[in-house]
Amino acid sequence: MASTAGQVIRCKAAVAWEPGKPLVMEEVEVAPPQKMEVRLKILFTSLCHTDVYFWEAKGQNPVFPRILGHEAAGIVESVGEGVTELKPGDHVLPVFTGECKDCAHCKSEESNMCDLLRINTDRGVMIQDGKSRFSIKGKPIYHFVGTSTFSEYTVVHVGCVAKINPLAPLDKVCVLSCGISTGLGATLNVAKPTKGSSVAVFGLGAVGLAAAEGARIAGASRIIGVDLNPARFEEAKKFGVTEFVNPKDYDKPVQEVIAEMTGGGVDRSVECTGNTNAMISAFECVHDGWGVAVLVGVPHKDAEFKTHPMNFLNERTLKGTFFGNYKPRSDLPSVVEKYMTGELELEKFITHEVTFSEINKAFEYMLNGEGLRCLIRMET
Amino acid sequence: MASTAGQVIRCKAAVAWEPGKPLVMEEVEVAPPQKMEVRLKILFTSLCHTDVYFWEAKGQNPVFPRILGHEAAGIVESVGEGVTELKPGDHVLPVFTGECKDCAHCKSEESNMCDLLRINTDRGVMIQDGKSRFSIKGKPIYHFVGTSTFSEYTVVHVGCVAKINPLAPLDKVCVLSCGISTGLGATLNVAKPTKGSSVAVFGLGAVGLAAAEGARIAGASRIIGVDLNPARFEEAKKFGVTEFVNPKDYDKPVQEVIAEMTGGGVDRSVECTGNTNAMISAFECVHDGWGVAVLVGVPHKDAEFKTHPMNFLNERTLKGTFFGNYKPRSDLPSVVEKYMTGELELEKFITHEVTFSEINKAFEYMLNGEGLRCLIRMET
Repeated sequence: MASTAGQVIRCKAAVAWEPGKPLVMEEVEVAPPQKMEVRLKILFTSLCHTDVYFWEAKGQNPVFPRILGHEAAGIVESVGEGVTELKPGDHVLPVFTGECKDCAHCKSEESNMCDLLRINTDRGVMIQDGKSRFSIKGKPIYHFVGTSTFSEYTVVHVGCVAKINPLAPLDKVCVLSCGISTGLGATLNVAKPTKGSSVAVFGLGAVGLAAAEGARIAGASRIIGVDLNPARFEEAKKFGVTEFVNPKDYDKPVQEVIAEMTGGGVDRSVECTGNTNAMISAFECVHDGWGVAVLVGVPHKDAEFKTHPMNFLNERTLKGTFFGNYKPRSDLPSVVEKYMTGELELEKFITHEVTFSEINKAFEYMLNGEGLRCLIRMET
Repeated sequence: MASTAGQVIRCKAAVAWEPGKPLVMEEVEVAPPQKMEVRLKILFTSLCHTDVYFWEAKGQNPVFPRILGHEAAGIVESVGEGVTELKPGDHVLPVFTGECKDCAHCKSEESNMCDLLRINTDRGVMIQDGKSRFSIKGKPIYHFVGTSTFSEYTVVHVGCVAKINPLAPLDKVCVLSCGISTGLGATLNVAKPTKGSSVAVFGLGAVGLAAAEGARIAGASRIIGVDLNPARFEEAKKFGVTEFVNPKDYDKPVQEVIAEMTGGGVDRSVECTGNTNAMISAFECVHDGWGVAVLVGVPHKDAEFKTHPMNFLNERTLKGTFFGNYKPRSDLPSVVEKYMTGELELEKFITHEVTFSEINKAFEYMLNGEGLRCLIRMET
């Protein structure tokens, strides 16, 4: 790989030219990494709702043409000036949010919301020089959340790269770059259920099932899955969900249903839909005295969370989380280890697989609500 | 004292015959304690807003005639059947909420909201037999929150009595029965600021100043007091308040003012007014990533807490507390010890003092907003 260091690499990338139109496989030029950047060879990537959301760009600031993709695993091809923690050949996960290790957030034990490298969905360029590293015949193609993994090679800020165990299978751990860690960390790092406790999970998509997986790992004895789609319950059982509640089946608020099922409420809840009513239900369904509810799902911009303040005064806690409170560089290696020891099961999240040239199929699966994660294999 | 055990005691009590009318000193009969009850000789009591609130009984279920009072200190006169933890002569604080040590809440390390003995403001009788222990010429006089300390003798459930160090001066530690512990515990047990951190306190009455006292004890380096009355700042300095913000002085929300003062928000905030807008400000003024806001003030029954869910997702936490999360029997003795070692200063809360026969003066001081706590000395 050393032969390409410092050179422009020509490779295949799936370019989103316009909102909502199929990606087009193009030959792109990928510039060498600049100061505090690394260039990665992506081996596996997968599709997350956030990619689809910014591809559709409904009500969003459209940034096109753009290379999407942020769940991935790869190998360092070369490093730019000042990079000392990574070297060519290292196995890594690129992450859509970063860890500079120098700001107040990185220095806080409680926060992972790095001031320098916090997710920015509008920015399509590198922070070092405000330019893109991707181009087609000299015309720049924009980056996406600092990762742009729908390309055989990409350039990422070193603060957005987690170095992991080289023995970890990249076709499995690639899903830890985003959604699975988000749900898992929401439970393990923020809700922190104790062994034998009860946990409600709102929304049984990939993130919600990862939250359930966290509850299973923590030893929760009851994991109540809440979803409007009853078809999800069967699959959810694999992730430890023991009971299923469909709010449509009741003519009273689902928080009341859950309180009745559990003698006053669950010990913990995790909200993974982003729907405001689900957030309110998730908060109000936890037990007074000790219940903790955690918000994960991202709401629309005019959303409003409302509740009677007595629900707080009766000793309930409401917290939110971003990327499961994991600091990308410091914490992801240990999540990979949880998979390596068999504690965390990742195979069950990967329900589909396509080759890179079939990437638009992954979009179809997601738009049709089929499966959880579609693995995209870069080398055909 | 043994001579009165098992006998009806005739003594003085200040009876509220009607809402909002001055209390009347009466001779009352106090029946002996029944199963799991103790009869206390009250030596000192003090007036709290909650007494005034239920005395005014605006929008409340009126329970009259009634003996109010719930902040107090006294000595056990006699004990009823089944009481093994207390004996005549023990120094105690009666508390408006209890600890049965047997329910799910008492068994939880996190909760103090006992199922059996949780505060009940509508109930005017003892839970053992649904009757009052107070009477005047055979006509029952109702209890108040299980304490009714505006009487020389009162009967209390054993679960609502904290046994304390007999060396503690009862004319000081009596204020720990309610408001001071509520504010202090909100900071020390729930907000938990670390040394050197910043804390905002909304509302600089007795509870808010106790919250500030907690922040001072915890070693907070900045304690920002927020109140609509600038006259309170001078006194607040004694409780560690370092800066004062009057929301009326700004034409933008106070949470923005505080965020600007502190580089993004305070580490912790404690809300002690019960006003919904103050609750929202208290939540939104904490720093993203790690900020924790704690609600203490009791809202009116139609109140609604509203905020954009992103304020949670940016890793802020909102919690509420009841009686500072102290379990009355298990935890209050150690709060008394904090006073005994000089860590906690109680003298500065006691700004007025009257004799029992002057008790209506204490109501006047409170209604005029004068001072913090008025000590009522039972023995003239």
